[in-house]
Amino acid sequence: MADRIWTAALVVIGDEILSGRTQDRNVAQIATWLNVQGIRLAEVRVVGDRTEAIVEAVNALRARNDYLFTTGGIGPTHDDITVDAIAEALGVPVEYHPQALAILERHYATRGGLTEARKRMARVPQGADLIENRMSGAPGIRIGSIFVMAGVPHITAGMLDALTGTLEGGAPLVSRTIGCWVAESEVADLLSAVERAHDGVAIGSYPFFREGKVGANFVVRATDAALVDACVAALVAALAEAGYAAIDGGI
Amino acid sequence: MADRIWTAALVVIGDEILSGRTQDRNVAQIATWLNVQGIRLAEVRVVGDRTEAIVEAVNALRARNDYLFTTGGIGPTHDDITVDAIAEALGVPVEYHPQALAILERHYATRGGLTEARKRMARVPQGADLIENRMSGAPGIRIGSIFVMAGVPHITAGMLDALTGTLEGGAPLVSRTIGCWVAESEVADLLSAVERAHDGVAIGSYPFFREGKVGANFVVRATDAALVDACVAALVAALAEAGYAAIDGGI
Repeated sequence: MADRIWTAALVVIGDEILSGRTQDRNVAQIATWLNVQGIRLAEVRVVGDRTEAIVEAVNALRARNDYLFTTGGIGPTHDDITVDAIAEALGVPVEYHPQALAILERHYATRGGLTEARKRMARVPQGADLIENRMSGAPGIRIGSIFVMAGVPHITAGMLDALTGTLEGGAPLVSRTIGCWVAESEVADLLSAVERAHDGVAIGSYPFFREGKVGANFVVRATDAALVDACVAALVAALAEAGYAAIDGGI
Repeated sequence: MADRIWTAALVVIGDEILSGRTQDRNVAQIATWLNVQGIRLAEVRVVGDRTEAIVEAVNALRARNDYLFTTGGIGPTHDDITVDAIAEALGVPVEYHPQALAILERHYATRGGLTEARKRMARVPQGADLIENRMSGAPGIRIGSIFVMAGVPHITAGMLDALTGTLEGGAPLVSRTIGCWVAESEVADLLSAVERAHDGVAIGSYPFFREGKVGANFVVRATDAALVDACVAALVAALAEAGYAAIDGGI
């Protein structure tokens, strides 16, 4: 069993995210999907529709992660520049992908035909493969370790679905959540001590204020399920000793 | 009137965002608030609870933006390392802020007293000022052009409120939205031509599929309201000429 940790980075591309107009949903969606593939989302950058910004982010992140995902900017309009920016980052030309052209021709046969603008969605960096898109016509793009996905979350969901099980990863991250009606500041030392006693485990503390009371959820994460269970047991015992009842599954 | 564009960057700090457990809301919230201050959110990075990652992001982004915001990692627990990481990025020591200590002492007087863990929330990089937090005890931190905010969105909202009108900015970005029941690929050339004819304006195209039909919203953005109006008028006219009715305000 390999202990190697596989990581991915994500570049979210789009002025609409940076302007606050659109609430991003792809970070959480892709993070959750990656966890199941045994790959950890290590970092995310959000950049606008500017070639230079995309190229910089893509080159910085692909150099230090096993996989790089991008979302956004692969439609037919003038502000869709992701394909050209990725080709520039990789130093390869852009070309029409014959299979993508065939898919779009079929898709638009009953929708007004394949115009020049629509043909833009068949452009890929040279050497790229397609990622199936069951939701709308235009496919996603895979080139080496880079995965170019749609900005619209439900289209990205379909593309992730098409990729499920095809990426090499390590052991999936396992997590368990324990809730407690306590101010996290009351048990900060306890949390820290339990984490230190369990090498390879990370405990996250997420406070909240609900029903007029403060509480917190403690999320215990590791790649080894037995280790997570042992750490949760130790945490529950330590909380009980301090006079607090832990609620399995969180609050 | 200055034409200078003021920019801000945001570093979102937290394993819970990268694991997919928590849906970030601070990017959209801070972006929207910055627009009103006449400051543009230029880039965002999401990093985990790791000092090295925070230091790298903070130093890269503060060098090329007027302002830098961070969210997350300022609570009392072991995974709250933002203050130390920012002090390291700036090369200054961490110290207790007397006013923050006083605030926390008052806040916790009826809540079990100021423990060592709670005192952690009064630690600031040397030379920092506080940002008022009306929601919970622990204040935010301002040091130079860096603003250190909470991860919990409603607490961040309160801190932004306290900062409103205190940051120098330029002309606020004005935007108007036009909706149209059309596939964006049908009007891609038209959009591009209208944008090219209006220097200083950016047109974003955001397609959707609703009520069984495809449509798109076109968002026209510029710092000059008259320019936005002129561009919207030209866009509406061009759409009408192509046989499409524009819906003011978007769909």
